[in-house]
Amino acid sequence: MATKTPVTVAYGDGIGPEIMAATLQILEAAGAALEIETIEVGEKVYLQGNTSGIEPSSWESLLRTKVFLKAPITTPQGGGYKSLNVTTRKTLGQYANVRPCVSYHPFVETKHPNMDIVVIRENEEDLYAGVEYRLSPEMTSAIKLISRPGTEKIVRYAFEYARRHNRKKVTCFTKDNILKMTDGLFHKIYDEIAAGYPDIEKEHWIVDIGAAKMADTPEAFDVIVMPNLYGDVLSDVAAQIAGSVGLAGSANIGDNCSMFEAIHGSAPRRAGQNLANPSGLLLGAVLMLMHINQPEAAERVHNGWLRTIEDGIHTYDIFEERVSTKKVGTKEFACAVIDRLGQKPNRLKPVSYAKYQAQSPGASAVSASKPVPMELKGIDVIIHWPSRNTSELAALINKHAGNGLSLEMIDNRGVKVFPPGVAAAETFCTDSFRCRFMSDGTADRSKMLELVKRISDAGVDVAMTATLRTFDSVEGYSLAQGQ
Amino acid sequence: MATKTPVTVAYGDGIGPEIMAATLQILEAAGAALEIETIEVGEKVYLQGNTSGIEPSSWESLLRTKVFLKAPITTPQGGGYKSLNVTTRKTLGQYANVRPCVSYHPFVETKHPNMDIVVIRENEEDLYAGVEYRLSPEMTSAIKLISRPGTEKIVRYAFEYARRHNRKKVTCFTKDNILKMTDGLFHKIYDEIAAGYPDIEKEHWIVDIGAAKMADTPEAFDVIVMPNLYGDVLSDVAAQIAGSVGLAGSANIGDNCSMFEAIHGSAPRRAGQNLANPSGLLLGAVLMLMHINQPEAAERVHNGWLRTIEDGIHTYDIFEERVSTKKVGTKEFACAVIDRLGQKPNRLKPVSYAKYQAQSPGASAVSASKPVPMELKGIDVIIHWPSRNTSELAALINKHAGNGLSLEMIDNRGVKVFPPGVAAAETFCTDSFRCRFMSDGTADRSKMLELVKRISDAGVDVAMTATLRTFDSVEGYSLAQGQ
Repeated sequence: MATKTPVTVAYGDGIGPEIMAATLQILEAAGAALEIETIEVGEKVYLQGNTSGIEPSSWESLLRTKVFLKAPITTPQGGGYKSLNVTTRKTLGQYANVRPCVSYHPFVETKHPNMDIVVIRENEEDLYAGVEYRLSPEMTSAIKLISRPGTEKIVRYAFEYARRHNRKKVTCFTKDNILKMTDGLFHKIYDEIAAGYPDIEKEHWIVDIGAAKMADTPEAFDVIVMPNLYGDVLSDVAAQIAGSVGLAGSANIGDNCSMFEAIHGSAPRRAGQNLANPSGLLLGAVLMLMHINQPEAAERVHNGWLRTIEDGIHTYDIFEERVSTKKVGTKEFACAVIDRLGQKPNRLKPVSYAKYQAQSPGASAVSASKPVPMELKGIDVIIHWPSRNTSELAALINKHAGNGLSLEMIDNRGVKVFPPGVAAAETFCTDSFRCRFMSDGTADRSKMLELVKRISDAGVDVAMTATLRTFDSVEGYSLAQGQ
Repeated sequence: MATKTPVTVAYGDGIGPEIMAATLQILEAAGAALEIETIEVGEKVYLQGNTSGIEPSSWESLLRTKVFLKAPITTPQGGGYKSLNVTTRKTLGQYANVRPCVSYHPFVETKHPNMDIVVIRENEEDLYAGVEYRLSPEMTSAIKLISRPGTEKIVRYAFEYARRHNRKKVTCFTKDNILKMTDGLFHKIYDEIAAGYPDIEKEHWIVDIGAAKMADTPEAFDVIVMPNLYGDVLSDVAAQIAGSVGLAGSANIGDNCSMFEAIHGSAPRRAGQNLANPSGLLLGAVLMLMHINQPEAAERVHNGWLRTIEDGIHTYDIFEERVSTKKVGTKEFACAVIDRLGQKPNRLKPVSYAKYQAQSPGASAVSASKPVPMELKGIDVIIHWPSRNTSELAALINKHAGNGLSLEMIDNRGVKVFPPGVAAAETFCTDSFRCRFMSDGTADRSKMLELVKRISDAGVDVAMTATLRTFDSVEGYSLAQGQ
């Protein structure tokens, strides 16, 4: 413990300053070797006119220390303010969100007494890349992105996490029975990487059934890794049913800087009254201590905290006559934890981080990109066709085909309407149609773009085009229903 | 009850024939006026080489009766078989999935004794339109579609359902803090339509927090309406935590034909042994009876079934020493329900459909499409750039700009990498980049397509293009993070 680790700290808004002071006090008493640099983020910075809630100069500290302990902040009311978490996540390449969801029965109320799961959520891709287009007056779209390196990073992180934390199983949730290409890639990479961890049990669930199982029987799970959107929804479900929203910490792991925080908000109405429960931020700080390879301090803090909860020393939010022995404020809670540093819980399971090894720098490496033979097959042209008259559309479009390209089908919301299927006459159509042209093998991309131009020059409103290719002889595009 | 309503029935696979026989026997005894046409769907049809599991001739019956009572089917192992439910849903325009999730405490085990919610899921749009493209060796994409008419139909259906069923509140779940255009449209239309139902309470939750609340405190909800994907996941969560997966029926409501079924599968290992619980299909049939405006028969069946459950006459799947009085098979369960037709439950809440009015034909009407002034602003070109060298890419691309179009930014997975931002040098890049060109007002679509052609002719692999427009002066495209 000779050298101190530099850590960037933000006290945040609302109850933030109080719970941060309590947390840092406990860390110091536990012997954590930290060199703290303080930056300002949140409400004050937003109101100074900085729409991201962080000053440009603060990035320097974050990019240098690469460790950020952040109290909750308040985003001012009114439009134009961007989420600080989204900004730091994207700017700092924080690819993994880690959220342990643990129940502390019988000391904290829960319907799931034996719950101890960790949700590991991909943090940069999926629909949250924020790529949206309005395709027509009636139709809007958002693009879900799933990449091989992005998925490799999160899945490998999950397995490394499981190994480092002595976890037995890593479960994967996807919807690859429907989303065969995107979620199919996630599942495939999960299988590939899992093969390198024979010591860890693997298991895949379709997300709907998996979510139902998790919400009903969370004790059946251990570590769960998921694409961004499912992880967003289900990590909130997991924290809530554990009874631990006010007690849970979380980590955002990145190559350039990792951030540790409580999962709850800044609770402005509780601010300045020595009421708030510092546990969420404190457990976030425990994750930080492990990340910077100070497992002894992490274990001391975590076990002291468990003992405090077990002894019934509770802040107002978890106080209950039945199990609590003393209602305390933020400061008194911190003192109670400090008094118990070096002790272990008796009924709750103590943590043991003695053999813990922090993440190795190479853990998020991705496999080298190999060239993949691609072959051009055709082009999809998504157009706005307000009359919705499908046969008129087909006639017009067909006039512009040729030159090695023919109209294979037209669909509306994924349902083929031309050539007409069994109930096509009764298919409800929006004003947004997709026309698929296939090449006879002679049409290159240049000819395809000329076709698009002919359609556009004929007065058809082209909203989007997508190149159809095979990759290693496998189709890189889905077929329409009924195609 | 003079005229019988024609209904198409499929006995399905596994336990299907047994539970269908039991269900039809109860319906008949209850005085339901049905003229039954039987069609074959499922395993046998799949194995005859029909990849959709339904014969072309069966569509005629479905499109004529417009009512389909379907037992669970088995989809054979091996690839190439399409989901029958997806096919019928899409072919028949079944825009609404309705799933009541009720707990029957203390007669069926649940952690949520007072749960009585109805999940109404949009059934045709969202990511389940199945539009996927591989954009590069590393990047896959799927397009989420949310349309105005599709959303109007589902939201209006939800409010009409609530009014018809005497429900007090319709809650909406979206993620419109992130997906401002797609989920934003869903939320906006929800607000518009809710204004026409002042007698019904309205409420919106961000889906992550709403899902957490629902999983923990389902009694706080009544009817919940959601886009397709959230509804898929959360209707399974709701059914599971109610303890009623084996007892729940569901309706798929369409303009051309509505389908009623159990939510469970065909359980082949239980088949032919007089073991299966027919309750799920029976409650699906109750939804059907209401749909075809036979509320008296629906009420008789539903109350007789509730009384049977309450009397402890239980099939093996819900049998429990503590509350059950008699373990029965499928046939005996059906007889027990028939014996109780005309009776009401004492402890469970009886249903009352006396004042029920079936859905009026105009209920799914959508507002007329109005022309919206659009203005062309630019074009996004999504390319495959294997070297990932951003400045080389910008230099090359810039060479081809001009003619009224200039390169505004390049991003990777939604994060701006050119012009470089605060940590751009450290941003992890996949091999898929998006280049955004804005027009100075002089570039028409023709010039934009010429620009795409110049880029493509220079050897750059163009995967996708998206036209950037304003609609009624509002941007129809999202900004990149950091833009």
